[in-house]
Amino acid sequence: MATYQAPLKFMRFLLHEVFKTEEMLQKQNALEDFNAELMDAILDEASNFAQQVLFPINRNGDEQGCQFDNGVVTTPDGFKEAYQQFMDGGWAVMGCSEEFGGQPLPKSLHLMIEEIFYACNTSFGLYPNLTNTAIHLLEHHANETLKQTYLPKMVSGQWAGTMCLTESHAGSDLGIIKSRATEQDDGSYLISGTKIFISAGETDLTENIIHLVLAKLPGAPEGSKGISLFLVPKFLPDESNNPGERNAVHCGAIEHKMGIKGSATCVMNFDDAKGYLVGEINAGLKCMFTMMNNERLSVGMQGVGNAEVALQSATEYALDRKQGRKPGSKDVADPIIGHADVRRMLLTIMGMNGGCRALTALAGNMYDSSIYHQDAEEREKSARMLALVTPVCKAFFTDQAFISCNLGLQVFGGHGYVREWGIEQLVRDVRITQLYEGTNGIQSMDLIGRKVLGDGGIAWQEFKAELSTMIKDAEQVNILGKDCTRVRQAMSNLSSVTDSLLENAKRNIDIQGSVATEYMNLFGTVTLGCLWLKMAAVAINSDAEDDVFHSQIQSVCAFYCRHQLASVSTSVERIMAGAKTIISPDISEFELTTLVN
Amino acid sequence: MATYQAPLKFMRFLLHEVFKTEEMLQKQNALEDFNAELMDAILDEASNFAQQVLFPINRNGDEQGCQFDNGVVTTPDGFKEAYQQFMDGGWAVMGCSEEFGGQPLPKSLHLMIEEIFYACNTSFGLYPNLTNTAIHLLEHHANETLKQTYLPKMVSGQWAGTMCLTESHAGSDLGIIKSRATEQDDGSYLISGTKIFISAGETDLTENIIHLVLAKLPGAPEGSKGISLFLVPKFLPDESNNPGERNAVHCGAIEHKMGIKGSATCVMNFDDAKGYLVGEINAGLKCMFTMMNNERLSVGMQGVGNAEVALQSATEYALDRKQGRKPGSKDVADPIIGHADVRRMLLTIMGMNGGCRALTALAGNMYDSSIYHQDAEEREKSARMLALVTPVCKAFFTDQAFISCNLGLQVFGGHGYVREWGIEQLVRDVRITQLYEGTNGIQSMDLIGRKVLGDGGIAWQEFKAELSTMIKDAEQVNILGKDCTRVRQAMSNLSSVTDSLLENAKRNIDIQGSVATEYMNLFGTVTLGCLWLKMAAVAINSDAEDDVFHSQIQSVCAFYCRHQLASVSTSVERIMAGAKTIISPDISEFELTTLVN
Repeated sequence: MATYQAPLKFMRFLLHEVFKTEEMLQKQNALEDFNAELMDAILDEASNFAQQVLFPINRNGDEQGCQFDNGVVTTPDGFKEAYQQFMDGGWAVMGCSEEFGGQPLPKSLHLMIEEIFYACNTSFGLYPNLTNTAIHLLEHHANETLKQTYLPKMVSGQWAGTMCLTESHAGSDLGIIKSRATEQDDGSYLISGTKIFISAGETDLTENIIHLVLAKLPGAPEGSKGISLFLVPKFLPDESNNPGERNAVHCGAIEHKMGIKGSATCVMNFDDAKGYLVGEINAGLKCMFTMMNNERLSVGMQGVGNAEVALQSATEYALDRKQGRKPGSKDVADPIIGHADVRRMLLTIMGMNGGCRALTALAGNMYDSSIYHQDAEEREKSARMLALVTPVCKAFFTDQAFISCNLGLQVFGGHGYVREWGIEQLVRDVRITQLYEGTNGIQSMDLIGRKVLGDGGIAWQEFKAELSTMIKDAEQVNILGKDCTRVRQAMSNLSSVTDSLLENAKRNIDIQGSVATEYMNLFGTVTLGCLWLKMAAVAINSDAEDDVFHSQIQSVCAFYCRHQLASVSTSVERIMAGAKTIISPDISEFELTTLVN
Repeated sequence: MATYQAPLKFMRFLLHEVFKTEEMLQKQNALEDFNAELMDAILDEASNFAQQVLFPINRNGDEQGCQFDNGVVTTPDGFKEAYQQFMDGGWAVMGCSEEFGGQPLPKSLHLMIEEIFYACNTSFGLYPNLTNTAIHLLEHHANETLKQTYLPKMVSGQWAGTMCLTESHAGSDLGIIKSRATEQDDGSYLISGTKIFISAGETDLTENIIHLVLAKLPGAPEGSKGISLFLVPKFLPDESNNPGERNAVHCGAIEHKMGIKGSATCVMNFDDAKGYLVGEINAGLKCMFTMMNNERLSVGMQGVGNAEVALQSATEYALDRKQGRKPGSKDVADPIIGHADVRRMLLTIMGMNGGCRALTALAGNMYDSSIYHQDAEEREKSARMLALVTPVCKAFFTDQAFISCNLGLQVFGGHGYVREWGIEQLVRDVRITQLYEGTNGIQSMDLIGRKVLGDGGIAWQEFKAELSTMIKDAEQVNILGKDCTRVRQAMSNLSSVTDSLLENAKRNIDIQGSVATEYMNLFGTVTLGCLWLKMAAVAINSDAEDDVFHSQIQSVCAFYCRHQLASVSTSVERIMAGAKTIISPDISEFELTTLVN
């Protein structure tokens, strides 16, 4: 069976020893209640809630899925009750502003809690997550009336939120959406169009659902500069701000998907539905990106969460399952963890999960610094670095998580293929993370095109300085010598590749596209190498008495540096050859039939 | 939607131009009817049958799955009728010996037909495939009475065959099975025990099912040297050789799986079922391996077949789906094949599919030479080389096929995640190929331990000579110069790694296990590089007028050599570091809790 206990020790190690979040916040005079004790208590409670309430309904959520009947969506057994407990426990208000009843949290803590919730039940975790990001968008871009009307009930969790972007012909390319908005005399709008892939577009969890919808006004500019954003409630609030008149937005169908079957993915039909402008006219996409960046960090955590379940389940199985003999053993059969190839798989997942979690904690601190730092320049610098690592957290984490979940399944052998064990569900559930909120290919284009080359390498230089400090600090720790050499070499490879791209690819989208995915792999792999060095150095220097844990950190660091960093040479070769091999041969003109008949 | 047309042009190119199967068979005075025309006609008919009969019932097979009710298994709608058409079309007799009504085929042709059937419907393809391999086993190891009684009806397809190996505690490690056999006075045996994961253990397709069952006799030696093989029919044949008395073997349940849902995976209970010894006492595992090796080549084709559907479906989608603009374009949106990252994904699949198919054709010719070659030494040499590449065909092909199916899904973006499109089914269906018939980890141990190091490198040297000839021949073709340099370099890397392993790892299972998977990657990648060179050289020198096809072969070869071969450097680094990093840290003693609390 799938097994999971939140990796709290690892999380505490990151928060308190590696990235010293408490100290950072104190310096910034921000979130001063959040000392180490409070953060630990929240992590404890979050893991109790998730393990006791969300994890047990995860398997059935997959088997039963969401049901659709004549516009009504029913979530799997137990989801409604769990959602009530989620609200009662005060988890809905996490990360929202106090003005509307929210509870701001250090972002790194918030992301760890998300990891735990997703690990226990990705489908469930998506519901409040979407509301949470919708809240952020409204906090930033809605006018005061909309905020006062909608935010209190969204923050409490009574009302849910959605993001309605995609249309059947327009997914990655939102510039060509067809949904239309027409202004009414009272300043409201009528919205018409059909949106697809709308997570939580319709559910039985909440009394109202607040849709954030992209649409075009008559005469708006073509493409992405002519898109506006509207708030469209399922029920229009009455005078007492309770759900009143039913609005003309309805769910037409739900998708039958590979995974996350407990999450309702809806076709939403807007038929002159009443809506309200959010932000400026034609600035809808910009508003939406506030939400998207947040969402991308969150999708990264979905990956890590699922991969952690894969790791723990596979480790337990490998310790328990006896098959074949360990070299030198006289037993009839030994636990399969005795086989080096099984250890390779487990260590690979450990290296990725730990490294991704560390980058998350760092990104969380950048997020907080970008808001709370006393110095405006530091705030901007943090924002730039956060923007740089956000696509990495989304795409690199989820690509690796998919690999990790499959390695976990592989450890189970044929049993992994049987639904009952719950491992293949991880593979199916996590597969979506490489696709939504911008495919990983698009994230890679964002990293190289917009984030690295776009600003002439400024954010990259800043981030590189951070990473270099990590290497330098680790070099003070004698026993890390060989690992440091490997990471330094990898870092120098990443640097020269980046320099060469800054020189040659700045304006060439085709070269960027040819190397984007491999550059993402390179960037992520090297970054995690630096983070493992930092973790190992901290573990070795730690005063805390936990030798087993600290030596384990060192072991995984050593494995990561020797095994995972070896992928750097391939990435470099591919990037250097990439432009040539993918631009030409130009298979755009390939006829499929040439290979066939 | 998933699209598929059998890649007949490519297959003909391999059979007639690259590997000259007709010529080879003529030299061996074998299968002399099989001139190029006949082979083409059979490929045409096979693809017509598979595309018209098997492909249309593939999606529903997945949605509906097999049903189990009180011991009775019902296959999905249409499977029974398709099976009848399969028999009527004479496809059941393929590859079986003429003595029992079979039709021997050149093995490379047979494997291509398997690829086509699996591509159209993997679940369906498994049913006759298992019968086919059971027939081979009986042809080789059963006594004359058993042959005469069972083979004619199995060869015609009226009776099916199964392999009953796995038990719940014994999968990869068959030495510890618990099923028992007791000899009766009449020379037959009573078999008792429970087998799991038995494909086609019970179905509604045939009037009888012949199980080949591993069990232990009282007092048999421990481990794999004490296993015997028995034939256990569902119905005992009566005097007229029709299904008579019901035997005490029953299906207790079917598994609910990630994929291949149209294939019944059964728990089989043997309760003093009557059976007959096949082969020698305690030599059961050896007999079974005749079957397993055949089966492993077949599983490789499952991988390639599914990956080909992924390639064709994704290419069609990429040519059709408009999203974003191609660099320089003034259109509202261009087909996504204009994006370099999409081309990267398609070219990666093309390189893998074509290369795997080429190695299959070569392996097929080795198979035939191992039987038909006039010279005994040549027969043995071919058998050795076939044994060497068999685990590569099984593990490398299926690992790459899983990657390819996922790349195909990725091209579809969010639509790929929706079941309706049929792409995610490929990912789920193909995932089993990495697990069954020996996990890919076990295949990798087989490659390095038994096949390369086990005979002191003899088979490896022989195969290396073949590959080197391919490089040398290609070096005669001027325009392949750069590609040749890359492949030669990769080959030299593989050689020195192998030499170093021959020197240092011959008796060290732990080192072998540490590097096995990466050695498999290296071996497969380099081998396919040589095959691509050979194909490109043949295409360039070809008299046949098909410039588009031939230049496409060259383009994919160039991509493969620059992009895929780049993985060699990582493999080499990992193998060189492997022993150290996986033997130590020894995480066998890891307590899972160390990272958790």
